[in-house]
Amino acid sequence: MDIELNAENTIAKPLGPRTIPTPLEEHILGATPDHHYYSDENRVLVRHLLPEVKASLEKGEELACFEVAGPRKKLFFDPSRTTCGILTCGGICPGLNDVIRSLVITAHFRYGVRRILGFRYGFEGLNPSFGHKPVELTPEWVENIHRFGGTALGTSRGPQETSVMLDYLQEMDVQVLFVIGGDGSQRGALAICEEARKRAYPLAVVGIPKTIDNDMIFMDKSFGFETASAAAVEIVHAAHTEAVSARNGVGLVKVMGRHSGFIACAAAIASGEVNVVLIPEVPFALEGPNGFLEYLRQRVLRRGHAVVVVAEGAGQEYLPESNGYDASGNKKLGDIGIFLRDKIQNYFHECCTDLTLKYIDPSYVLRGIPAGTQDRIYCQRLAQAAVHAAMAGKTGIVVARWHSVYVHVPIAIAVAARRTVDSRRDIWFAVLEATGQPARFY
Amino acid sequence: MDIELNAENTIAKPLGPRTIPTPLEEHILGATPDHHYYSDENRVLVRHLLPEVKASLEKGEELACFEVAGPRKKLFFDPSRTTCGILTCGGICPGLNDVIRSLVITAHFRYGVRRILGFRYGFEGLNPSFGHKPVELTPEWVENIHRFGGTALGTSRGPQETSVMLDYLQEMDVQVLFVIGGDGSQRGALAICEEARKRAYPLAVVGIPKTIDNDMIFMDKSFGFETASAAAVEIVHAAHTEAVSARNGVGLVKVMGRHSGFIACAAAIASGEVNVVLIPEVPFALEGPNGFLEYLRQRVLRRGHAVVVVAEGAGQEYLPESNGYDASGNKKLGDIGIFLRDKIQNYFHECCTDLTLKYIDPSYVLRGIPAGTQDRIYCQRLAQAAVHAAMAGKTGIVVARWHSVYVHVPIAIAVAARRTVDSRRDIWFAVLEATGQPARFY
Amino acid sequence: MDIELNAENTIAKPLGPRTIPTPLEEHILGATPDHHYYSDENRVLVRHLLPEVKASLEKGEELACFEVAGPRKKLFFDPSRTTCGILTCGGICPGLNDVIRSLVITAHFRYGVRRILGFRYGFEGLNPSFGHKPVELTPEWVENIHRFGGTALGTSRGPQETSVMLDYLQEMDVQVLFVIGGDGSQRGALAICEEARKRAYPLAVVGIPKTIDNDMIFMDKSFGFETASAAAVEIVHAAHTEAVSARNGVGLVKVMGRHSGFIACAAAIASGEVNVVLIPEVPFALEGPNGFLEYLRQRVLRRGHAVVVVAEGAGQEYLPESNGYDASGNKKLGDIGIFLRDKIQNYFHECCTDLTLKYIDPSYVLRGIPAGTQDRIYCQRLAQAAVHAAMAGKTGIVVARWHSVYVHVPIAIAVAARRTVDSRRDIWFAVLEATGQPARFY
Amino acid sequence: MDIELNAENTIAKPLGPRTIPTPLEEHILGATPDHHYYSDENRVLVRHLLPEVKASLEKGEELACFEVAGPRKKLFFDPSRTTCGILTCGGICPGLNDVIRSLVITAHFRYGVRRILGFRYGFEGLNPSFGHKPVELTPEWVENIHRFGGTALGTSRGPQETSVMLDYLQEMDVQVLFVIGGDGSQRGALAICEEARKRAYPLAVVGIPKTIDNDMIFMDKSFGFETASAAAVEIVHAAHTEAVSARNGVGLVKVMGRHSGFIACAAAIASGEVNVVLIPEVPFALEGPNGFLEYLRQRVLRRGHAVVVVAEGAGQEYLPESNGYDASGNKKLGDIGIFLRDKIQNYFHECCTDLTLKYIDPSYVLRGIPAGTQDRIYCQRLAQAAVHAAMAGKTGIVVARWHSVYVHVPIAIAVAARRTVDSRRDIWFAVLEATGQPARFY
Repeated sequence: MDIELNAENTIAKPLGPRTIPTPLEEHILGATPDHHYYSDENRVLVRHLLPEVKASLEKGEELACFEVAGPRKKLFFDPSRTTCGILTCGGICPGLNDVIRSLVITAHFRYGVRRILGFRYGFEGLNPSFGHKPVELTPEWVENIHRFGGTALGTSRGPQETSVMLDYLQEMDVQVLFVIGGDGSQRGALAICEEARKRAYPLAVVGIPKTIDNDMIFMDKSFGFETASAAAVEIVHAAHTEAVSARNGVGLVKVMGRHSGFIACAAAIASGEVNVVLIPEVPFALEGPNGFLEYLRQRVLRRGHAVVVVAEGAGQEYLPESNGYDASGNKKLGDIGIFLRDKIQNYFHECCTDLTLKYIDPSYVLRGIPAGTQDRIYCQRLAQAAVHAAMAGKTGIVVARWHSVYVHVPIAIAVAARRTVDSRRDIWFAVLEATGQPARFY
Repeated sequence: MDIELNAENTIAKPLGPRTIPTPLEEHILGATPDHHYYSDENRVLVRHLLPEVKASLEKGEELACFEVAGPRKKLFFDPSRTTCGILTCGGICPGLNDVIRSLVITAHFRYGVRRILGFRYGFEGLNPSFGHKPVELTPEWVENIHRFGGTALGTSRGPQETSVMLDYLQEMDVQVLFVIGGDGSQRGALAICEEARKRAYPLAVVGIPKTIDNDMIFMDKSFGFETASAAAVEIVHAAHTEAVSARNGVGLVKVMGRHSGFIACAAAIASGEVNVVLIPEVPFALEGPNGFLEYLRQRVLRRGHAVVVVAEGAGQEYLPESNGYDASGNKKLGDIGIFLRDKIQNYFHECCTDLTLKYIDPSYVLRGIPAGTQDRIYCQRLAQAAVHAAMAGKTGIVVARWHSVYVHVPIAIAVAARRTVDSRRDIWFAVLEATGQPARFY
Repeated sequence: MDIELNAENTIAKPLGPRTIPTPLEEHILGATPDHHYYSDENRVLVRHLLPEVKASLEKGEELACFEVAGPRKKLFFDPSRTTCGILTCGGICPGLNDVIRSLVITAHFRYGVRRILGFRYGFEGLNPSFGHKPVELTPEWVENIHRFGGTALGTSRGPQETSVMLDYLQEMDVQVLFVIGGDGSQRGALAICEEARKRAYPLAVVGIPKTIDNDMIFMDKSFGFETASAAAVEIVHAAHTEAVSARNGVGLVKVMGRHSGFIACAAAIASGEVNVVLIPEVPFALEGPNGFLEYLRQRVLRRGHAVVVVAEGAGQEYLPESNGYDASGNKKLGDIGIFLRDKIQNYFHECCTDLTLKYIDPSYVLRGIPAGTQDRIYCQRLAQAAVHAAMAGKTGIVVARWHSVYVHVPIAIAVAARRTVDSRRDIWFAVLEATGQPARFY
Repeated sequence: MDIELNAENTIAKPLGPRTIPTPLEEHILGATPDHHYYSDENRVLVRHLLPEVKASLEKGEELACFEVAGPRKKLFFDPSRTTCGILTCGGICPGLNDVIRSLVITAHFRYGVRRILGFRYGFEGLNPSFGHKPVELTPEWVENIHRFGGTALGTSRGPQETSVMLDYLQEMDVQVLFVIGGDGSQRGALAICEEARKRAYPLAVVGIPKTIDNDMIFMDKSFGFETASAAAVEIVHAAHTEAVSARNGVGLVKVMGRHSGFIACAAAIASGEVNVVLIPEVPFALEGPNGFLEYLRQRVLRRGHAVVVVAEGAGQEYLPESNGYDASGNKKLGDIGIFLRDKIQNYFHECCTDLTLKYIDPSYVLRGIPAGTQDRIYCQRLAQAAVHAAMAGKTGIVVARWHSVYVHVPIAIAVAARRTVDSRRDIWFAVLEATGQPARFY
């Protein structure tokens, strides 16, 4: 994650000067009399470890910062005359409906926005050739949606033509667009933002980053990730139960995580029942005396059972090169779960070691559930921050929590790299401590 | 289910006359002064529909009855000198630990049994050649096991040699054997029981029937089934969420149910979100204007999404004949889930109908969980009934609830047929009403 | 529960001859070709224990039976011209929305009923002076209500004037009225039914019995009871956790159960963590060497902790006579929980026994939750049965499950007595076995 | 929270120089080759907002930092010769058992500590006059405790004599003491630490801060808080269900929060169903046109229902001065829940506004549950950090996560103030946005 940061590229350029007094004045005056907190001057350091801060200071650099999110006293848009649009892109994730709901509640009740359009099925909803009519979003429409998983707006994968989408947004007289989606979708949002700037059409594009794998950078966590991890723990419990109920029982669980093994790590640490975690970030040898298979066999011989959790993106080097991509442009992965299941069975068989292996691939079970309490709060905080940002004319940003503070992160920075489990750092180390597995299979 | 029942074969022959006063006397005297309830003369009609009762009476037959379970005033065994054994066989199922725990609690605290052996890994535990040493079960050992899924004793599939097992039971001085297992295991239990009778070794063999598929006859339900159904509903919710979040979304879920589709039916009725249920008991055509595929396509075109639940044993006629059997003697099934997934995708593709299909196979997730409240109660009631029965010298029986009454069912009767969803009766009819699917795909 | 039953009073008089062919014909023909099951001649014995059956036969009596519920081939009402009404009365209970939803789904989709009115706030909704306008219930309106607790129609306690309600029903042209409520409400429903008969207004009144306490007779269980029991188990776990975490810890939990201690019993059996259960049906002495307080103290001294569950209606003899009644006509109960909390603290203090007592009164927490899986299924089955019954012109009945069969029970019979825990029978005995408490405190 | 921080008081003095090579070398070398992360020089800024950082730099101050937690290459103690002690103090909280378990797992498996003593019932366990014998904690002993709420070691409130406790620790040859407890207990831990230093007894005292109210400073969150908040959301759902099911229904819920309303705020934001939150940090007027009661009444008149959540410590100024303190030295609070319930009922009655009020006080239900997934992870991370710290000779500290980094915070700093909801900042502001309530009732 070696992204060149500086005091410029960590702050996005807003639409223009702010002249409209906020209708939140009363709340702000009541609750936060002139508090510096809600000002563009309030920023948070991107790096807060002393060695890094010192290095910057010694070089005489300005410290790179993100803008702190929150309501502003003056707005760019007059809310009562502003039309907002919302869309959700890519795979579903717990919390999508919480974000939609809170965007609507905040825009409608707090700012008095009178027209909020929900575009259907992701970017398809901005391409009129699909014929998806937007829905008028009201507090009644969203009242209970947060109690359900998925997205009430529908979703789809992949981009549409930028100019087509912007034409449609202009036709629909939309000034504020909220894009709830992953890195690909945020790139699409940025393209719309930049095209609008070229056309001098004052459009605020604010993203709410969505990735169940928790693999986007500059955010403490992504919404939905914790809920999915909790669901993964339940699956691990089931696998552990199978394993301990059988003689030489092995439970093998595949969980989400294309490039980043955060869910696998969380499930392992939280359950306290996992003996080996395999993630994309840490290559592993299968064969040989220090390989995974022999380690697993020794563990089973010693303790009578074992549980293995593998992230879907792990060990792809063992699988035949796939030739396809999905509509989001993600390379189709080979099935590491099935591969390991067969490898383990063959290896134990060759070694004449009895084995009762149960393989569980919960697939979509982890993501089709309503958000848990903390994700619910997180979604609301992000959505509130997004509305405040958009009304103040911020654009080309995503909202996120960074080191416990809600901030604006320029999209260009947020999508510049992928967050992964750092095998030299504390999360992976916590996995090693929890599982007792060796640092590497080699 | 055309089993010839009569007043004889519905009551099993006990070990012998009862002469030992029960240590429960005080409880019984306190709570149930001379109540007729706890007597061998108290029986419940096997059939309680008027037309059937009348037919029997008109033929002058005695009405077939089961013995009502419960404590007896006189016992066959002297509990303080009796050794009990417990084992669990076959696939795991929610509630196994509740049954074990309650057998131990009841035998130890209520009857004062001093030695209770837990045999490890099913019938393997009765075959000394495996070298599994039994554990001494105490209230402390079982105190918290019911909070966990699986079986604390371990399990295995398949039988062992009857005479070997009985030799070992005699060697261990076991007078009472509780076998928690499915129809195959209960047949094994019956064989031990009969062999003991031949040897004139006074051994009470009492089964607690276990089948997550709810496919054993003469019982209102099997333990674990309701818990598994509740878990299946959560999976259906996830599939439904996927389906409604996508354009032309289809959620396809495979659930347990080798021969009987009870879990599929329960999940469909309870969720209120299923559009088609496919079970082993009701054959279905795939192709053709009245076939499943076209019905599904029409539903998707009309409503934009659909959810299908298929029991693993459904549609086996479409799959290549499997050549294997598992250790329990169950024929290995072809994978109807994968088959349908591909068939649906191909069919929609051929019809040029867009489709976003998500397939979920929760497999062991449904069974590796702790029992829910009602299953927990049911397990305890069954276990208490089993201990009462065994102490009174009942043998060759399973305990069950039949038409709301706890009863003793001779093993020979209980395993004489399999319980299935009757496509002419109310459960299937409730599915049709809940899903709106046609009575048959033809 | 000594209700005089005979072959007459167990079958209610229907509205009249049935001449309209059912639109379910196709389903019935497909699924149940001429099956005797769906006929008025199919009945189930009220009593199915052999001694009782024999006694009846010996006396030459006809065996008392209930009509088996289900669709009929000919209907009394023409569904397409029939208006149905639904209302919910009394305290909320898990499953109310499932019943409403399934009534609407079944009437609309299966029978083609075009107008279904939801009356608001119980019987108030039938009294125009309250000004509550009924809502038109459609499949869309009810689509997701089952995912929420409570009642989407609103509820109130207490009756309204019968003639006023019937006037309004006639004015609204309602032919079928579904009343979801407790014994009081069912009495109200019966009054409407009888008044309609007097007026020769062909009104089918079908009740779906609702009591979270499970205290209505002639039904295997009431809907919502199992869900509430499961919630109570969670509370017991919390109390047990407090108790074992403290030195001489006592967890005291009060649960619902005005006249019947079924929830207390279920929570005790299922949790496996309760040491004493106190219910209205079993009086108990507080003081004295065999009283509750000393028993509790001895238990704490011996084991270091204890858990007590008390039903709200228990021990009312110790509390000052209350002078009030709530709007449903229920006598206001004294607070036995607070009373016992103080008594226990004082007693331990007097005995110089250390004590850390934690008292939990979950109150409405048990009932304001969505129904669990089995209650969900049960609600749907009851609602389907209710619609079938009403369309066939059955009136003055409630639908229920009796000894595993869905039946029609005349309201007059269903409200003739209250179901209680029989201290001489198996449920209470299972509690004694699970808790180890003595049969009585005296 | 105006605590004077400087580069000195934010780093605690360790026991002495480190000379023992860590047995984790292999893990560290494998996973983290010479990474700067695991060094005392790695520190994190206490303040990371730019205005604060700039102000410090301009004044020429050194930036106040906390030491980053984690394994060190050299240890102060030789693990194989070190005895560790663990105790839990004060009220129970989800996650206590996770912390205990992970302390034992990490010390035993990762460091090879051979003797770990669990002291019973908090500080009582260090006072031999109570006669509580410590338990030898092993991996087997702790294997499943994390699946249960409460504390397997038992707890008690209040301090014991410092010198008595240290005498006992010396007698038991304990070199490392882990104290899991709140601010009072950490003060007790600090006293032991200082006394040991006086006696030149090399004792590492490391605290794991415990407060279900989330009211300790310098930590992103306290363990158990999120789990309790999730439980509170369920209670709010129940209250909301009651409210919407009745005409003019009001649900009133009291939740934990003596001095800090974090649980109330979390429950309000997450549920999306709360209309008014009352917390100790924000005084409120009851009466008058801008008071709480009239606001509530207007809301009920307008929408037909309302939900109010009150933290137990709110509005104490309305309650008679209490004269007692509990054993932990906490002032006994008046019951604001009962007070408000009565006030609301009287006010509506006076205003002739119909009302159906349901009051829920879940009390201990929120805290007697097992930890959720994220709390489980957090507990393990804290426990691992605590063991690393202690082995390196850190003492007089608590471990915590601060701005996403695990750190060592000197106890003196951690207990110098209480964390409260800042009514001028974002959490309270998010509550106002979620509830729509005015900034103040005045």
